[in-house]
Amino acid sequence: MNTFGRIFRISIFGESHGQEVGIVVDGCPAGLSLAPDDFLEDMNRRRSGAAGTTGRREEDKPRIVSGVFENKATGTPILITFSNRDTRGEDYSSFQDIPRPGHADFASYRKYGGYNDFRGGGHFSGRLTVALVAAGVIAKKILSPAEIRSEILEAGGSPEIGKNVKAAQKEGDSIGGIVECRVLGLPVGLGEPFFDSTESLVSHMVFSIPGIKGIEFGAGFQCSRMKGSECNDPLIDTDGKTENNHAGGINGGLTNGNDLIFRAAIKPPSSIAREQTTVNIKTGKKTSFSVKGRHDVCIALRIPVILEASAAIVLADLLLIEHKRPRIMR
Amino acid sequence: MNTFGRIFRISIFGESHGQEVGIVVDGCPAGLSLAPDDFLEDMNRRRSGAAGTTGRREEDKPRIVSGVFENKATGTPILITFSNRDTRGEDYSSFQDIPRPGHADFASYRKYGGYNDFRGGGHFSGRLTVALVAAGVIAKKILSPAEIRSEILEAGGSPEIGKNVKAAQKEGDSIGGIVECRVLGLPVGLGEPFFDSTESLVSHMVFSIPGIKGIEFGAGFQCSRMKGSECNDPLIDTDGKTENNHAGGINGGLTNGNDLIFRAAIKPPSSIAREQTTVNIKTGKKTSFSVKGRHDVCIALRIPVILEASAAIVLADLLLIEHKRPRIMR
Amino acid sequence: MNTFGRIFRISIFGESHGQEVGIVVDGCPAGLSLAPDDFLEDMNRRRSGAAGTTGRREEDKPRIVSGVFENKATGTPILITFSNRDTRGEDYSSFQDIPRPGHADFASYRKYGGYNDFRGGGHFSGRLTVALVAAGVIAKKILSPAEIRSEILEAGGSPEIGKNVKAAQKEGDSIGGIVECRVLGLPVGLGEPFFDSTESLVSHMVFSIPGIKGIEFGAGFQCSRMKGSECNDPLIDTDGKTENNHAGGINGGLTNGNDLIFRAAIKPPSSIAREQTTVNIKTGKKTSFSVKGRHDVCIALRIPVILEASAAIVLADLLLIEHKRPRIMR
Amino acid sequence: MNTFGRIFRISIFGESHGQEVGIVVDGCPAGLSLAPDDFLEDMNRRRSGAAGTTGRREEDKPRIVSGVFENKATGTPILITFSNRDTRGEDYSSFQDIPRPGHADFASYRKYGGYNDFRGGGHFSGRLTVALVAAGVIAKKILSPAEIRSEILEAGGSPEIGKNVKAAQKEGDSIGGIVECRVLGLPVGLGEPFFDSTESLVSHMVFSIPGIKGIEFGAGFQCSRMKGSECNDPLIDTDGKTENNHAGGINGGLTNGNDLIFRAAIKPPSSIAREQTTVNIKTGKKTSFSVKGRHDVCIALRIPVILEASAAIVLADLLLIEHKRPRIMR
Repeated sequence: MNTFGRIFRISIFGESHGQEVGIVVDGCPAGLSLAPDDFLEDMNRRRSGAAGTTGRREEDKPRIVSGVFENKATGTPILITFSNRDTRGEDYSSFQDIPRPGHADFASYRKYGGYNDFRGGGHFSGRLTVALVAAGVIAKKILSPAEIRSEILEAGGSPEIGKNVKAAQKEGDSIGGIVECRVLGLPVGLGEPFFDSTESLVSHMVFSIPGIKGIEFGAGFQCSRMKGSECNDPLIDTDGKTENNHAGGINGGLTNGNDLIFRAAIKPPSSIAREQTTVNIKTGKKTSFSVKGRHDVCIALRIPVILEASAAIVLADLLLIEHKRPRIMR
Repeated sequence: MNTFGRIFRISIFGESHGQEVGIVVDGCPAGLSLAPDDFLEDMNRRRSGAAGTTGRREEDKPRIVSGVFENKATGTPILITFSNRDTRGEDYSSFQDIPRPGHADFASYRKYGGYNDFRGGGHFSGRLTVALVAAGVIAKKILSPAEIRSEILEAGGSPEIGKNVKAAQKEGDSIGGIVECRVLGLPVGLGEPFFDSTESLVSHMVFSIPGIKGIEFGAGFQCSRMKGSECNDPLIDTDGKTENNHAGGINGGLTNGNDLIFRAAIKPPSSIAREQTTVNIKTGKKTSFSVKGRHDVCIALRIPVILEASAAIVLADLLLIEHKRPRIMR
Repeated sequence: MNTFGRIFRISIFGESHGQEVGIVVDGCPAGLSLAPDDFLEDMNRRRSGAAGTTGRREEDKPRIVSGVFENKATGTPILITFSNRDTRGEDYSSFQDIPRPGHADFASYRKYGGYNDFRGGGHFSGRLTVALVAAGVIAKKILSPAEIRSEILEAGGSPEIGKNVKAAQKEGDSIGGIVECRVLGLPVGLGEPFFDSTESLVSHMVFSIPGIKGIEFGAGFQCSRMKGSECNDPLIDTDGKTENNHAGGINGGLTNGNDLIFRAAIKPPSSIAREQTTVNIKTGKKTSFSVKGRHDVCIALRIPVILEASAAIVLADLLLIEHKRPRIMR
Repeated sequence: MNTFGRIFRISIFGESHGQEVGIVVDGCPAGLSLAPDDFLEDMNRRRSGAAGTTGRREEDKPRIVSGVFENKATGTPILITFSNRDTRGEDYSSFQDIPRPGHADFASYRKYGGYNDFRGGGHFSGRLTVALVAAGVIAKKILSPAEIRSEILEAGGSPEIGKNVKAAQKEGDSIGGIVECRVLGLPVGLGEPFFDSTESLVSHMVFSIPGIKGIEFGAGFQCSRMKGSECNDPLIDTDGKTENNHAGGINGGLTNGNDLIFRAAIKPPSSIAREQTTVNIKTGKKTSFSVKGRHDVCIALRIPVILEASAAIVLADLLLIEHKRPRIMR
């Protein structure tokens, strides 16, 4: 459902074209500094505007409604909301009966018996990731001094990202990409045995981001082509450092003292200007259409900060479970 | 932690060299037929014995302790246990201070302050997957008539699996592999919005299997190299069938009426006969060692039925949440 | 934490003197009718204004932010918020170092290292029950045609409620009371075995209401003084109806087809005009004070609708788990 | 369901007349000493044998199956099981169609579509509390040096317990009672805001014990008859000590540094030798019967140690969430 986490617990809500999207963040340690400006950098990194991103412009200014008093977390639930201002309902109304390929339109129509909010994908829109990034800002503060970094490795099948974006834009098409995320300075032993392995929790959160179709840790799929003698990472000191890091910083589901590394595969945005076909679910007839609304050519460009947030949210929870963070006292 | 699921909920326990491993399965619909023989086929598929698998021989005969009365589920928790008989504690005692590369030895030593059961990886052993497969047998019955199939696609980097296994065995080394799982006949609309997307839950469960380093759905990482016009799966009928299935049967986290398809990357087993190096965590000195115990050359050979169980457990839970299964009445 | 429920799941937030209090309601069945006017009746019943209730006046107009489209639930999370308008921060600032007896002031100061929002009890204020009542309105619709009724049985130790309230008000004091709640028309078999018995879940929710100090089901404490031959409720038909209802409609934690009945004991409000003593937590010195802020003389007067909401929230979740509610299709 | 707890998490299973009952205890801190003898005292306190308790004799010897290595908790799930030896299935088979008043027979028959294990109440039997007591032994060790004490205050309506038990036994009847539990030495600030108040969690757990019909904290129901000036507990030092303890050690759902006190009302056992009436659910005919099986005259006699276990389990979880217990390192 729309809740995640055991100590650091988040509940997300909202729709692409509703009044507001947002998130409730429960379990934030009391005393953590939290001011509206703390969100600026990550909000800017997620925001559209660069070549290849949607023309929709949102201010993305977080409103901190509860759980913060005099710029410090109180320890009780923090509600953060974002207004949806630049919504154009009329762009989508014609799609009510013709599910767009690649979107949740058909499945959510069936799941919700036709009562889903179809405007812009409703609750299934990437718009909700703005709330995830906000929770990520808080999570990163909890994780500090551990650091999270993320970058796009390739888009459209190559590292020539700018060139591929431009070409796709010209064709009225879209492209996917691969983004890598790296967490430095984590303590050893985060993660819980069996079901709550670090990989389990990180992948759980990452696959909640719309458009992700694959994830791998460390050498990932490449591991399946290695020999054990090659893939194993020999320990070189008593802090856990290993000679190489094919494991991506995780053994047996637990962080092992090396950088945590994972990569996610992002599909090309499903909304494209080029003509596509689908079936009218009322009439059963094949239909052609093209998406006139604003959309991203390459959503992968906006994914790095969202991936960081996802990792931070999971790791902050694991850190708090492991008692690795000292309590703040006034 | 060691619990997973919202309606169909499992709790796993045990260690490689303890008395028993097993699982509590809560939320199984009352009236479901369940006899010891129902477990035979999947237990056999998981069991070692073929070339490339460990010499450890366990009977893997499930003991159904509770929750079943006259071969029918009662609706209350089902405990299933498996004895560990063929354990050789002495094989491992020498490793207490020298963490084996690729294993959870170092991280679990730190996490548990030195109190972890180090024999054969303890709770972090692949031995626990026998319990997962048992829960999978029940889950498959709940999912029926939907069907789950799984097969190994490659090992050691190629489809020449037998050849690669033999070569690695000869060298005292090990190899990884890639396994694909496919679920046919699922209803439309399983999966919950945002955090409990079908991909989130399946990947969560799959990464709890020791040795998995990557997962992808549908075209997966290949999606990241496609254009939108190519990757989108146009709808061709009002049941949700699409022209192709790059999405792997999932849109917006919800099943869409097509086959659910995913692949997992399995690393080569970390225990190999060849000499390896590590560091003694007491002395800090570099140490050479080789694993004399029994071990798999290619654990990927035993993964298909475990992957099926993982998918079945998640999907049975989602099916029961969605109310798609009629209640059995006497 | 601030989340409750397995299918019908709520997350509450806010403080007495913050901007807004509210609730996220997840798992509401799609298609359920939901308009702002639906909340009016229960909001009015909870609101202060009658003799014996606080002078604080809030409009308590719900703002439905997400999860509802064209007055129908979409099936995704519903955020409902209430503005705090009539807050007088200055009333409370002088209490920062002198914890008021009976309130959470001391314990929350310690728990949160001094970072708690101390204004009016912050997150521990009864103000949050406005959000609970809002979730209750939705839950009651899900439960329909089952009906929930609640009434105050006594206040200040007798059924002469009005008289006792007036007397206490005159003395600058406060009084407690007992409220009974009754649910009619529930299906047989709600409740889950062992930990999630109906009594467990109802009491869990009821004790989250500030000021509750006891709960009993059916004959409750009086059962402890009965003989088995007297307390047992003989079955009189195959629908589960019993001759009497000492069990309060629950056997073995499961609803049994009779009215579900429970009573809650509500303590007198802790804020009173009369002088009280406490200790200054900075100086350790004994201090006298009296509460000048607005406060209820008898909070029990406002509890009936809150108790109904609590029961409805729990039972709606159990009903949805049991699949007893037909899906709405357009 | 059959799982409870956030960090210290238990999963219970078994039936009155099945092979074994037991519990999985997850989240126990690694390094905690745990030997079979540690369970003796509490097992003996729960066991029947005294006047007024059932003639069923079970050895109640715990088998620690996993999670403990060399008498220390490993930090991974602990499975503890108890054999059912003294079961007499034949005592109950005649009750399959005639639900016994006061028992879960009718409701569970309906809930599980007739597939419930009807022998001795199956999963709804008080037999499962042996597993709860076992988990309580571990929880008490985690809570140490805080201490838990419990005693029966009255049975059959008066403190003359022995006399009342004998009289009821003679009449072939049964009696209820009231048990008080007290926890000394808890830190300030346990409990989570709103839904996870200490009262919410304790009552949740206590109502899972078969036969409990009411609970009250501190002065409880008596609070409802007090004035605020009387009920409030004035603080007398900066550790939180109060002049009296009407609150039962809890304010705003948080422990406040005073003894945590609660009382539970236990109904008379439903199985009595005297003739009772019910309805045959197959034929709809009224039927007379009397219970020939062994049963307790006053189950309240065995409740004190079960109440202690319930409180300990909840408080151990809250303590671990609050990080108040130092980690054990070898």
